[in-house]
Amino acid sequence: MAGFTPSLENLIDKFARLPSIGRKSAQRLAFYLLSMPQAEVDSFIDSINTARSQVHRCSVCCNFTDSDICSICSSKERDRSTICVVEDPRDIAAFEKTHEYSGLYHVLHGVISPMNDINPEDLCIKELLARLGSGEVKEVIMATNPTVEGEATSIYISKLIKPLGINVSRLAYGVPMGADLEYTDEFTLIRAMEGRKSL
Amino acid sequence: MAGFTPSLENLIDKFARLPSIGRKSAQRLAFYLLSMPQAEVDSFIDSINTARSQVHRCSVCCNFTDSDICSICSSKERDRSTICVVEDPRDIAAFEKTHEYSGLYHVLHGVISPMNDINPEDLCIKELLARLGSGEVKEVIMATNPTVEGEATSIYISKLIKPLGINVSRLAYGVPMGADLEYTDEFTLIRAMEGRKSL
Repeated sequence: MAGFTPSLENLIDKFARLPSIGRKSAQRLAFYLLSMPQAEVDSFIDSINTARSQVHRCSVCCNFTDSDICSICSSKERDRSTICVVEDPRDIAAFEKTHEYSGLYHVLHGVISPMNDINPEDLCIKELLARLGSGEVKEVIMATNPTVEGEATSIYISKLIKPLGINVSRLAYGVPMGADLEYTDEFTLIRAMEGRKSL
Repeated sequence: MAGFTPSLENLIDKFARLPSIGRKSAQRLAFYLLSMPQAEVDSFIDSINTARSQVHRCSVCCNFTDSDICSICSSKERDRSTICVVEDPRDIAAFEKTHEYSGLYHVLHGVISPMNDINPEDLCIKELLARLGSGEVKEVIMATNPTVEGEATSIYISKLIKPLGINVSRLAYGVPMGADLEYTDEFTLIRAMEGRKSL
């Protein structure tokens, strides 16, 4: 026996099922939750319920939002001629942190992955195509992850977009800034060689 | 702006306040919670509320329990002549995993720490003393952590127990099994030398 009482053991189990939470962290979290003031626990649970009921997909770009249309799609300051296509809402946060990209986004919510039974119709691809009809969009930047599935998804989508006469690009692959070439994997080096630029 | 909608940002903040959860883990957990089936979320919240309402201190040893008396204190198979005194209920789980100790436990729920305004009366010391009156207990093993505060707490408690004619011992300090002496800190080595045994 583990030495914990059933309701505590159950709470630890629940925490241990969350991603990247091991058994020891789950114990620490469960004990912490037992020691929190009731008001804080209520506020924690309320945040879960509020997020679950409020957060849904932007009707334009499929990013998570509390409103009908997300703050980026409804912003008057964004360049409406460019859409950056990402796998996950967290990727938008990564691009926004650069403060360099001022266009719009589109969230696919995944990549095509026959192994995991994720097909094109499971992703927000038709919502992307629906945005391209007005003639406002001049370029779509594919920013899926540099993985086999990410690349395959980018190629699949680019084939749907090109016939519409819209430019499709993808992020550059290469050596990340600050990397040590000695420890850079060979696939990255191959891509970096292929994509070399004249000085 | 971080790119997340307010209710999601709020949930991420709540997770990030939990111990050993950084901002990235908090994001991952919040997104995972959004993607969980409603029944699983309900069950998660229910576990928190159940643990909070059910778990309390054993009226004998102060370990966490769902019952009035914990499973160890109420077991007929434990040796009732020995009490191992620990700081935290998690320490009991560590000893139980050894399958070597069959006595009882007592949980202090902390150590004396004037810096943090934790005084003897904040710990479960009077509950421990109350168990020693019947004459059944022959030995108390102090198993607080090998820290300055843990040791001071052990010494404080041992001074209260010795006048009752009960043996008080503490865990051996020394080199942990499998350790590399080269990387063992000097305080541990000093204790290991002091505690050396003849072969």
